[in-house]
Amino acid sequence: MSVALIAGGAGFIGVHLARRLRREGWVVHVVDDLSGGSAHHLPLLEAEGVAVHVMPIADPDFRALLGQLAPTRVYHLAANSDVRAGVASPDLDLQRTFLTTVDLTSALHAAPPSELVFLSTSAIWGARTGALAEGTGSLEPQSAYGACKLASEAWLSAHAHRTGQRTWVFRPANVVGPLATHGVILDFLRKLAQDPLQLEVLGDGRQDKPYLHVDDLLAGIETGLSEGVAEPLAVFNVGPSDGVSVRWIAETVVAEAGVKAAIRYGETPGGWPGDVPRYRYDSGKLRGLGWAPAYTSAQAVRATVRALLAERR
Amino acid sequence: MSVALIAGGAGFIGVHLARRLRREGWVVHVVDDLSGGSAHHLPLLEAEGVAVHVMPIADPDFRALLGQLAPTRVYHLAANSDVRAGVASPDLDLQRTFLTTVDLTSALHAAPPSELVFLSTSAIWGARTGALAEGTGSLEPQSAYGACKLASEAWLSAHAHRTGQRTWVFRPANVVGPLATHGVILDFLRKLAQDPLQLEVLGDGRQDKPYLHVDDLLAGIETGLSEGVAEPLAVFNVGPSDGVSVRWIAETVVAEAGVKAAIRYGETPGGWPGDVPRYRYDSGKLRGLGWAPAYTSAQAVRATVRALLAERR
Repeated sequence: MSVALIAGGAGFIGVHLARRLRREGWVVHVVDDLSGGSAHHLPLLEAEGVAVHVMPIADPDFRALLGQLAPTRVYHLAANSDVRAGVASPDLDLQRTFLTTVDLTSALHAAPPSELVFLSTSAIWGARTGALAEGTGSLEPQSAYGACKLASEAWLSAHAHRTGQRTWVFRPANVVGPLATHGVILDFLRKLAQDPLQLEVLGDGRQDKPYLHVDDLLAGIETGLSEGVAEPLAVFNVGPSDGVSVRWIAETVVAEAGVKAAIRYGETPGGWPGDVPRYRYDSGKLRGLGWAPAYTSAQAVRATVRALLAERR
Repeated sequence: MSVALIAGGAGFIGVHLARRLRREGWVVHVVDDLSGGSAHHLPLLEAEGVAVHVMPIADPDFRALLGQLAPTRVYHLAANSDVRAGVASPDLDLQRTFLTTVDLTSALHAAPPSELVFLSTSAIWGARTGALAEGTGSLEPQSAYGACKLASEAWLSAHAHRTGQRTWVFRPANVVGPLATHGVILDFLRKLAQDPLQLEVLGDGRQDKPYLHVDDLLAGIETGLSEGVAEPLAVFNVGPSDGVSVRWIAETVVAEAGVKAAIRYGETPGGWPGDVPRYRYDSGKLRGLGWAPAYTSAQAVRATVRALLAERR
């Protein structure tokens, strides 16, 4: 049986990925220091037969574990996933995202996997008009989150060329779905739980972005891995081509929650400094390999609202 | 009088820049830890009335110095400048380039300058066909050198957007000129000094790239600063649109040195792992502001060969 190791596997996406890999018959090991990953995901992982190792990637034991497991595939999801947290503390993205990538490539010398998979982000571009494709230039990230993901891509690219390590980079749009630990939908639900009569929205509500359901992300990664050739690097955008506004999300959350909250908007175009208020995504490269999202942005958001409401009951 | 601070100012480009700024009437301070900068440049700087501070950017004294000087302009040239050294030790680029950038932005909070200038590189792209322009996409650096320059750009972009720091990024092609401390021309001269009868070339000699004279680089930076608007970030490619082959450089060095060396070529397209063997440069954005290089690639190389030969006598 093939062994997969997921660095940062106790986070939102990691749990879904681990489950999916288990169902495909993989032996799955998760390494997570729980700095971003959630401790209450651990029982879910263990119930699926996933081996969980609570340690940082920088730990010398991680290198030993890699050597012992010799995984076929390593998924690198270990990163700060809270974009807004990095606004106040860019050091968070530096340490948890970029320097974790450096530590990971260093440890991989112990047992280079056949396939290395890195999750990047659409935030590497900053504010741009037109649909973003893999080859769209002028990368000017506005957040430490986006900067440290781009820095990680750059480091992994040089690493791939130096060592021959076959590396896949996936750049998802905003990922939503059950078990989400961050993001606009969860923010709204938390605010409504505190005060069901009003909902304060960061920004003017006209932010308009693509939202990708986590199941569509995982299907996209699978397509990219099975069809895309990494010589030594392959890069794929993953996201629906449409988007929805924050105003629509706010209204949908209020309606689905069954409350009568007054929605109050801010005045800024973005929700916070570094927030890119509008963009669209071009995943034509992955679509060319046969992938298509099962959810539109609106469907992904609505399904997530319902799932998170059910989780909170 | 306006104060300029040059981080990494004891290196090849820094010395030329410091001289030029002094002649324009600036008060110039150089900070350098001499890890890459050359100690024998220090008398040249001092002869021009440049204040030299030998310390790393990470030193707490650097922050104090910034606060005390409150420079109008900060040039960030502090980086590993030896691309090949980073092949064996990527950590060199990590520490000396990227983490130095992080330390610098952190220190700048003490006294944010009106203008921050960063020197990046054409190596951020990796191997690409077609002339590279600022907006050319698919950045896949092949060397730790290029990766850590791209990572620095990303970090500075987020920093500029977060703090409003006006930031200029210049991406020169291969920079040549008097006082060069690295690069193919100096390599050839050193080899011929050891053995004037043969010259061994890394790679097959068909590498073909643009070479930018340091005087043209400095004129380009001046044009970009005086004409380009950083809101908050401005990015400029700087390089001639033509190029020359490594074979031509080898023959020119042998001829100018007046030796009868047999030139022996290797078999690989690149000189070393991570070397991008061929590219062309599109500096149309800077040309649109009135800049044009005074030297072609061939003229820049020949002038440099003669200058370095004179220095060695």
